[in-house]
Amino acid sequence: MAERPSRGQLRLNRRRLFAGSAAVVAAGATLTQCSIARSSVTQELSDSAVEPFHGRHQAGITTAPQAHALFVALDLAPAPGRGPRDALAAVLKLWTSDAARLTQGRAALADTEPELAQRPARLTVTVGLGPRLFDRIALGHRRPRAAAEPPGFATDRLEPQWCGGDLLLQICADDPITLAHTSRVLLKNVRTMTTVRWRQTGFRNAAGGRGGSMRNLMGQIDGTVNITDAAGFDRHVWHDGEDQPWFAGGTILVLRRIRAEMDTWDEIDRASKELAVGRRLDTGAPLTGSSEFDEPDFAATDRGIPVIPPNSHIAVARHRSDDERFLRRPYNYDDAPPTGRTTDSGLIFATYQRDPAAQFTPVQRRLAEADALNEWITTIGSATFAILPGVDDDGYLGESLLG
Amino acid sequence: MAERPSRGQLRLNRRRLFAGSAAVVAAGATLTQCSIARSSVTQELSDSAVEPFHGRHQAGITTAPQAHALFVALDLAPAPGRGPRDALAAVLKLWTSDAARLTQGRAALADTEPELAQRPARLTVTVGLGPRLFDRIALGHRRPRAAAEPPGFATDRLEPQWCGGDLLLQICADDPITLAHTSRVLLKNVRTMTTVRWRQTGFRNAAGGRGGSMRNLMGQIDGTVNITDAAGFDRHVWHDGEDQPWFAGGTILVLRRIRAEMDTWDEIDRASKELAVGRRLDTGAPLTGSSEFDEPDFAATDRGIPVIPPNSHIAVARHRSDDERFLRRPYNYDDAPPTGRTTDSGLIFATYQRDPAAQFTPVQRRLAEADALNEWITTIGSATFAILPGVDDDGYLGESLLG
Ligand code: HEM
Ligand code: HEM
Repeated sequence: MAERPSRGQLRLNRRRLFAGSAAVVAAGATLTQCSIARSSVTQELSDSAVEPFHGRHQAGITTAPQAHALFVALDLAPAPGRGPRDALAAVLKLWTSDAARLTQGRAALADTEPELAQRPARLTVTVGLGPRLFDRIALGHRRPRAAAEPPGFATDRLEPQWCGGDLLLQICADDPITLAHTSRVLLKNVRTMTTVRWRQTGFRNAAGGRGGSMRNLMGQIDGTVNITDAAGFDRHVWHDGEDQPWFAGGTILVLRRIRAEMDTWDEIDRASKELAVGRRLDTGAPLTGSSEFDEPDFAATDRGIPVIPPNSHIAVARHRSDDERFLRRPYNYDDAPPTGRTTDSGLIFATYQRDPAAQFTPVQRRLAEADALNEWITTIGSATFAILPGVDDDGYLGESLLG
Repeated sequence: MAERPSRGQLRLNRRRLFAGSAAVVAAGATLTQCSIARSSVTQELSDSAVEPFHGRHQAGITTAPQAHALFVALDLAPAPGRGPRDALAAVLKLWTSDAARLTQGRAALADTEPELAQRPARLTVTVGLGPRLFDRIALGHRRPRAAAEPPGFATDRLEPQWCGGDLLLQICADDPITLAHTSRVLLKNVRTMTTVRWRQTGFRNAAGGRGGSMRNLMGQIDGTVNITDAAGFDRHVWHDGEDQPWFAGGTILVLRRIRAEMDTWDEIDRASKELAVGRRLDTGAPLTGSSEFDEPDFAATDRGIPVIPPNSHIAVARHRSDDERFLRRPYNYDDAPPTGRTTDSGLIFATYQRDPAAQFTPVQRRLAEADALNEWITTIGSATFAILPGVDDDGYLGESLLG
């Protein structure tokens, strides 16, 4: 895949931008007094933005996060007389052809609302296979070793309705209408061969806000320490096909649904919130620093007491060796709360890595044992998917496995 | 209220803009090659945009529609020993003080996530009272005559879970995080005095897309013929306080939840879809014209057959007299479908007018009888609210009724 601008480059570009941004503001101001009209023009620039579809890797992973995401897990339910492997190939071919068009702002074949495809708004479609699917399609011997569910953790409170799945469809876009239309096209076309297992809708600050970091609904700047450069993606995210050559260029998604216990979180004061994470709420700076990207100093003490508590989220989550690093690409969720509760919100915590057993699991295990934040977060869902390698113009997603 | 730019002005400004927009594009292009970074800058312009809170009318009605909306209906559930009227006043005072701050990008009092208030993204908060509430608070004699539920219509398939309510809270913003935070603050603060009856989440094209019109999920351009100028708002939308002086500057919201029957809609061809509405899907032009804002010619025939069918949606919905006009401000919804269905989507059809009996009802009655679109849409919810007049700096919403 043509290398997309990495977040490292992005940050650099943003710096260059600030010097020049006054020019845009000024240009905008001369055009009209009306902020709404100004935002229409600027919005139209970004709604026509396109992310590449074809390439070595699927888009939607190292792509700078779009404002809206939908994660849908499906189970294969082939028609009688049709093998699950055939059904899978049919689904993947349909999705490839539809996604190749929709992501580029073109209507899908037989698109019944072609006009809704006109604003791609950085649409990406990303497809993965659940670990158990490999046995169902009699290809257990071709499952990448890394495509395995992580073990249970002491703090998990998993609800089956948010777990597992044969297939993952991840759709991200800056425009919610693009997302709705894409999900309808992709799901409608496979309805005779699949059933929807769960569906999670998430959002971040509207398009491109503050580079890689967003605010989550607990009020924290989320996404500061992350993998942002092509070398890092190659080392930590993309599978090299070691045990399964067909999987080279893929990655493993571990998706956790983590509820934020907002009512009790809001009972503690700001200082306690900051100690629980190890960073400031206003700037996102580590408690030992003054701005978001300052390196935390875990050794610093104040009258003998560590400034960043050893059980703070960042102290516990921090990689113990470089091998433990993985890409986080979380979205907020905020659904209708059950009667009597004020809020049902939290993170759709999406992580991408070559091998969860070596990356996600040791970090999550430490967090389950010691994270100060545990009091205010509860993991209620977990699912793992082998995100397929990317495809060239003439291939289909999964062809290297099924073709 | 300081007059907000009306949509009429907006359209004018947009025309002026197109002449100048190349300058913005060029300015953007010189800054960076990276579309993402460019959209960050433009986004930051619009995320800091503020809508006025104080004034003669509440915001969120003639305000150019934001990308995201949440409509929440609540019932008053006062604590024992506290009268419903006291509870209502307490709720309205809290909401006024919180909304006055949050809409201007300032944290609410005792805001537990103050940083989430920093990007107002054109946030508006709009509050209304259900018709039945007036009796509950022993102020039946002060209910505006216009604040009455419309009658039932033959095509209604109302589900109680989407109907009625003592209080309406309408929150709109271009950033979904702003919306989530605002709704949490406003709902949390009144949780001991209210219960949530229903909650509807909607969206339009991301911020400011294409002026007043959006695409709905049936693929149509929606919002073409609408009230767009201050004189029209004064005549059709704002109540003059005629029978209830305290209500001058208010308006009546009739909110209908209308499901789109997407599976059958997608079985018909484009020509049939266009005949059902009377407008083209691509441009939104009437079948007798060539661009969106052309005046439809309902008398035109082709070999004796009307070009715009008399039972098409626009022919039936068109006002028979100027008195029937009202403001439409719809949002799309797209929720998780029940098992076995592909889609649960449609319109949160929000209309604002001085008197539904004279404006909404005759139009809806005609539509129920004859609209060709009826085959593909089903009204499943209905609720009516007296949207309170606006407030000055030192007042609270509803003070003219309760103070
Ligand atoms: C609702 C749940 C969670 C919330 C609200 C949350 C929040 C945060 C915040 C605010 C930061 C600091 C800013 C940053 O670097 O992004 C952070 C860092 C981090 N989090 Fe989480 N997190 C959650 C769950 C998790 C989980 C489940 C894991 C791993 C299994 C995790 C792994 C990390 C890592 C690796 C870092 C970077 C630590 C460093 O090296 O400084 N987080 N998280
Ligand atoms: C899901 C349900 C509906 C859909 C998809 C829909 C769609 C449309 C479309 C595409 C137009 C043409 C463009 C425009 O002028 O905005 C339109 C016009 C209109 N609609 Fe609807 N509509 C729906 C329900 C209703 C209802 C329930 C009412 C009134 C009770 C209504 C009243 C109107 C009016 C007054 C116009 C303008 C007609 C004219 O003067 O040209 N619509 N609608």
